[in-house]
Amino acid sequence: MDKSASIVKAKLTIAYNGQHYSGWQIQTSGIGVQQRVEEAVQAVMGERIAVHSSSRTDAGVHALGMVAHLELPAAHHTMEMRKLAMAINAHLPEDIRVLKASRVRADFHARFEAKGKQYRYFIWNHFAHNPLLTHSTWHVTRPLDLAAMRKAATEFLGKQDFRSFAANRNYPLENSVRRLTRCDIQRKGHLITCIIEGDGFLYKMCRGIVGTLAQVGLGRYSPDAVRTMLEGHDRRLAGMTAPAHGLVLWKVFYHARRSART
Amino acid sequence: MDKSASIVKAKLTIAYNGQHYSGWQIQTSGIGVQQRVEEAVQAVMGERIAVHSSSRTDAGVHALGMVAHLELPAAHHTMEMRKLAMAINAHLPEDIRVLKASRVRADFHARFEAKGKQYRYFIWNHFAHNPLLTHSTWHVTRPLDLAAMRKAATEFLGKQDFRSFAANRNYPLENSVRRLTRCDIQRKGHLITCIIEGDGFLYKMCRGIVGTLAQVGLGRYSPDAVRTMLEGHDRRLAGMTAPAHGLVLWKVFYHARRSART
Repeated sequence: MDKSASIVKAKLTIAYNGQHYSGWQIQTSGIGVQQRVEEAVQAVMGERIAVHSSSRTDAGVHALGMVAHLELPAAHHTMEMRKLAMAINAHLPEDIRVLKASRVRADFHARFEAKGKQYRYFIWNHFAHNPLLTHSTWHVTRPLDLAAMRKAATEFLGKQDFRSFAANRNYPLENSVRRLTRCDIQRKGHLITCIIEGDGFLYKMCRGIVGTLAQVGLGRYSPDAVRTMLEGHDRRLAGMTAPAHGLVLWKVFYHARRSART
Repeated sequence: MDKSASIVKAKLTIAYNGQHYSGWQIQTSGIGVQQRVEEAVQAVMGERIAVHSSSRTDAGVHALGMVAHLELPAAHHTMEMRKLAMAINAHLPEDIRVLKASRVRADFHARFEAKGKQYRYFIWNHFAHNPLLTHSTWHVTRPLDLAAMRKAATEFLGKQDFRSFAANRNYPLENSVRRLTRCDIQRKGHLITCIIEGDGFLYKMCRGIVGTLAQVGLGRYSPDAVRTMLEGHDRRLAGMTAPAHGLVLWKVFYHARRSART
């Protein structure tokens, strides 16, 4: 008998306000979102179950489309998935919510099968911040030159080495090549949204890209400078790291494979 | 000499997150937004100056376009208006911000000259709330029938007596006739926005309208029932009062008269 036949997995889409968390991952200091989700799952299932996520967001970063999976214990194999989501939510603090739950193939893995992610970064560009968006937008007071930012943004597209835009880690020893498929900058009134999509992201890479784009928009760098920064393979060449509270993990993409038992 | 020639007034556009305030007005218990603004003005001007607003929002209601005016003391008659806004902001808590300041005619009055207002009410319509919008949207879990709500919304348009939709006050003794010029319901994903515009609003009238519309959307009332509610002139006939934290005073309209000394 195929062992996997007895495994039933659920895929969760999770949203959270990262303000009071030290990121997704369980931390030695501070509380990780994962910890709260696993505690809620335990309250529902009666046993500790690991919740495996697609991504590890940094401290203070938000999510509206984090994806995670877990193995359902036998007693919950036939549980209605919407009920599962609501039951977990009943045990979560209001700044974390399961938006959706669905059954997936026994061999589904939220991280290993993710084929891409979309992040959105929000900037409020006015001398006065918007008091309803204080904790979900980066306040940039001086006017940003969007044409320059859009020109610079195209430099990030395609498959290239992003180590100049990631926080210093052991990237000489690791693969720091990623493929960016989208880097759009939209404006609606004073709200500027950067939509960044790619097959993967290095540590703090999105924030390095947005921080640099903002500095292009402020005239600190020319749009062409981004090419030199990318080719230099050195974090010190690129611009600042934008603050965490403007960033939202928006969506995780998977190959359209048939979900089992839905 | 015309006394008004020596009066210089500034018009302020003010945004605030109403969550921690007992409304605009200075309260005997709790803190009003007005109090914080007058304290900040005093810190800038060196004297206590009354700040007169277009509206009095209820406890917990937000604003992105509250308008107020104040008389500038002689020493500040020539102050650059953007500097005035930034100076006041420097003395305000982060949940209140002056978005704009401009010089206006000596006889301008934020309340008496307001010819209309736009409110926006935000509903999150999904079984799970959005953790980034917890404090700025009303969470309605069951699916809302937007077609029914839109049909009901048209009943509110025009000049009529709205006492059935306002909190009980002495409306038999007061004029409770108002003209509504817009009552639109828009949806983007799970976010529903009600845009309500009129020449004036009774106490809690917007929230009475939205609460009733939501109950139409849930099937509690038929769209036609709104006509009967309006004509009954009795608060007990209409639906619930929607919670304060979904409501935003969006904009105040004035007749396009030339501003003096801008």
